[in-house]
Amino acid sequence: MAIGVFDSGIGGLTVYSSIIEKFESLDVYYLGDTARVPYGNKSEETICRYSLECANFLIEQFDISCLVVACNTASSFALNFLRSKVSIPVIGVVDPGAKQAAYFTKNKKIGVIGTIGTIKSNSYSKSIKNLDPSIEIYQNPAPLLVPLVEEGRINHKITKLALKEYIQPLVNKGVDTLVLGCTHYPVLKEEIHKLYPELILIDSSLAVLPEIEKCIDLSGGDTAKRLIFTTDRTEAFELLKQRIVGDIKSEKVDLKEFV
Amino acid sequence: MAIGVFDSGIGGLTVYSSIIEKFESLDVYYLGDTARVPYGNKSEETICRYSLECANFLIEQFDISCLVVACNTASSFALNFLRSKVSIPVIGVVDPGAKQAAYFTKNKKIGVIGTIGTIKSNSYSKSIKNLDPSIEIYQNPAPLLVPLVEEGRINHKITKLALKEYIQPLVNKGVDTLVLGCTHYPVLKEEIHKLYPELILIDSSLAVLPEIEKCIDLSGGDTAKRLIFTTDRTEAFELLKQRIVGDIKSEKVDLKEFV
Repeated sequence: MAIGVFDSGIGGLTVYSSIIEKFESLDVYYLGDTARVPYGNKSEETICRYSLECANFLIEQFDISCLVVACNTASSFALNFLRSKVSIPVIGVVDPGAKQAAYFTKNKKIGVIGTIGTIKSNSYSKSIKNLDPSIEIYQNPAPLLVPLVEEGRINHKITKLALKEYIQPLVNKGVDTLVLGCTHYPVLKEEIHKLYPELILIDSSLAVLPEIEKCIDLSGGDTAKRLIFTTDRTEAFELLKQRIVGDIKSEKVDLKEFV
Repeated sequence: MAIGVFDSGIGGLTVYSSIIEKFESLDVYYLGDTARVPYGNKSEETICRYSLECANFLIEQFDISCLVVACNTASSFALNFLRSKVSIPVIGVVDPGAKQAAYFTKNKKIGVIGTIGTIKSNSYSKSIKNLDPSIEIYQNPAPLLVPLVEEGRINHKITKLALKEYIQPLVNKGVDTLVLGCTHYPVLKEEIHKLYPELILIDSSLAVLPEIEKCIDLSGGDTAKRLIFTTDRTEAFELLKQRIVGDIKSEKVDLKEFV
């Protein structure tokens, strides 16, 4: 039994890390499309094409039984498209995050931060409204947070200023719950908590686990293979990989043949 | 007589704008690789491959006589590679910028800001040292400036803080000249000038013009065609295109056939 996880780049490793910790016996493969990262500033058509290429690679190479789209932008734009093209279950990060947010909010006011693409898609808003139409949702794109995380500026005055700028308007609206709608953001969870200790933070890297559990068969005696693939080899990826998942081997792959 | 200009995305439009203003009678074509932007966080191998695909498109479609690489990262990594692959003159933005900086500095101390890739390549440093080995060069990667410009946060406290953080250490070293080593940065020229009025700012979108002049024949009665191509269609590109070059038509193109 194998699970495939893909992301536009590095951020999805937070999801990968949660999956391998939770499902110790399963084979779990990761593909980061680092040659074309980020997806957040691309069009829907391009995001769908790239996502299908990533999915095809994982399916054809590893015969995975479940595909996890660990990228909020791809989850927002390409999920239905992927489901129409592949024959295995496809799990995105948006619906699980929305579900947890709707479950945890007490005053029915939820804030969402994400890339420009994710926020524009209204994917979280639609998904939450689908669960409970009475919930009020306030959104803010937070495009500086990805480069700040990738620069390693976690506990830094620019990061604090940016976080306040993005989150304060949502707090002013009275939200009690904040969806971290991008896989990079959980790295800033502690900083956000320090600034806004009263907020309930929804981390999609954890929210996705119960959904995976529903789709897979845990009974097989598996080999716990872990392999990480990227479409480009960069130092930034290697450094963050080391920090998030440690010594798992990574290989470069060319997606051209899986188009 | 036609000139081709390519960039990883939007930023090169500052160079394109200078070229069409200066060479009014020439045909000038632009390609922005918006489906894979940015190049600054990719590897040398990937940057070379993408750059050649962009070059081939412009050469095969428009029979250009001169190729301008309006991207500092591609100029830093792919220029020699491109020159070995195509038979027309290839002009990058690094050497012209370096030349102007070496010309303008009085105290022979030059600062350079750019993407992580450009700074790591040491391309400006090598090019300046090549002209005058006695010049001291101080560099700083400034990765937040591109997303800040793309967000339109020009006159904003986060931008000011980031500019100070990136430029102050160079000023502390005594530089009198600062190379804006990324095509996005000229948009921030006024802000930088306000913070550091004593610095001479080197803008590669202007530095490139004398080099082009050497390569082209201005005598032909040309048609002044202007066309802009992108590999992805996004709202951000359309907005910045409008702001930088106005109403020039843009078209989406698929580079697959030019590989």
